[in-house]
Amino acid sequence: MEKVTTSRLRVRYAETDQMGVVYYANYYVWMEVARVDYCRAIGFEYKEMELEDGIFLAVAESKCRYKTPARFDEEISIVTTVADVNRRILVFDYALSCADRPVASGQTRHVFVGRTLRPVRLPDKYASLFGIE
Amino acid sequence: MEKVTTSRLRVRYAETDQMGVVYYANYYVWMEVARVDYCRAIGFEYKEMELEDGIFLAVAESKCRYKTPARFDEEISIVTTVADVNRRILVFDYALSCADRPVASGQTRHVFVGRTLRPVRLPDKYASLFGIE
Amino acid sequence: MEKVTTSRLRVRYAETDQMGVVYYANYYVWMEVARVDYCRAIGFEYKEMELEDGIFLAVAESKCRYKTPARFDEEISIVTTVADVNRRILVFDYALSCADRPVASGQTRHVFVGRTLRPVRLPDKYASLFGIE
Amino acid sequence: MEKVTTSRLRVRYAETDQMGVVYYANYYVWMEVARVDYCRAIGFEYKEMELEDGIFLAVAESKCRYKTPARFDEEISIVTTVADVNRRILVFDYALSCADRPVASGQTRHVFVGRTLRPVRLPDKYASLFGIE
Repeated sequence: MEKVTTSRLRVRYAETDQMGVVYYANYYVWMEVARVDYCRAIGFEYKEMELEDGIFLAVAESKCRYKTPARFDEEISIVTTVADVNRRILVFDYALSCADRPVASGQTRHVFVGRTLRPVRLPDKYASLFGIE
Repeated sequence: MEKVTTSRLRVRYAETDQMGVVYYANYYVWMEVARVDYCRAIGFEYKEMELEDGIFLAVAESKCRYKTPARFDEEISIVTTVADVNRRILVFDYALSCADRPVASGQTRHVFVGRTLRPVRLPDKYASLFGIE
Repeated sequence: MEKVTTSRLRVRYAETDQMGVVYYANYYVWMEVARVDYCRAIGFEYKEMELEDGIFLAVAESKCRYKTPARFDEEISIVTTVADVNRRILVFDYALSCADRPVASGQTRHVFVGRTLRPVRLPDKYASLFGIE
Repeated sequence: MEKVTTSRLRVRYAETDQMGVVYYANYYVWMEVARVDYCRAIGFEYKEMELEDGIFLAVAESKCRYKTPARFDEEISIVTTVADVNRRILVFDYALSCADRPVASGQTRHVFVGRTLRPVRLPDKYASLFGIE
């Protein structure tokens, strides 16, 4: 059974650019907010994984398809799912929308790394939360 | 004959995060710097295209593969090429490095749009600079 | 009777830097979030003031005193008040805290401007909401 | 004899907002670029101070007065001086301009802190570079 979470945020003025819409890099910041929410929803604080276990979610790849522009003060919903996960990698899919209007879709591929940024295997305590056997 | 430009920038403290490396969304800001440089190198100011002709480069897709972390104060080089271009779309490829160390590779796909953000066809004056017949 | 609003937000990873705390410029982004909330609380959408009336809140001065570092994932509260307002200028005070810990205090001084960024006088419909006679 | 440095940077699209000018918080990012340049000019790399000596420049206060809007692609000059310095604090003044047009003036007040963010006294090797006896 796949976990799905929904995050909500409101577009900040700082996130717009002179085209009058949200600057394209900022969608990736929203994806970060969404995956931190996802971790919380399945049972752990991402912050604690870093602090207590020295495990970080390094980003190996990111991509985004922009469908309709997001604008200042709009309320954006982000539906987050895990597309792939094992002890070494984690892939999130994101669907961004504003009310019924699709805004963007994105994906980030992560590698679990330690404090020195070298790959590590995800410990049991987190693996079980992601449904890894 | 394909045009290639190289942009250089120094990593700002603001661009790092608590992992001690550059936050993943900021690579997209650097790609923007690189494509504005590219436009200047082939003969026009992107700013003028917006101001004088009301043509904007909306982003339709973006992606990035992260190879080695970029760190504060490093000097990053970005080699930019056009992977595809016609009167409606423009695709840039970017290779980011620090000295001889590959840092990341990225791609952005753009659509030419007018002030209302609807697609427009690229006028001759710009098309010729991109080698479009 | 002075209006006071409280905004809440959670610190994003993107907002931290390699010192492990929130980068100092990002507090100003939070103040923006807080003053947009303030406008909504007293009865108008800042967005509408821009769109419908062509009135913008240009920033003339900003300042911030940093008391204790804000960290990733902390919930920040921002208490916002108007320190001064008339038909030409608007000054906000902000008190930022995390639970009972003072985080920062800030102030932004604004000038009402039109689409060409020249000063304008605030129309009655907004002036009355700020308690200007 | 007071040291004065001049930094130059070009306004990024990412730094603008929907008002068509640079978002007010981004001036503080530019001040950071300027003070890192200043450190380099008087003889040390700020990066090395952090890495080798574990000394960080925490920001205690910041302020900015905005004079004329900065716009996309403009070349901004930042003249940086030290307004005050001793073994515990460091105050920078910044004058931002575009060609002969004053853009903004700013100030940041810093405290030297160690890895745990507690105040430390600036060691001789750096103190001498700032002209502290």
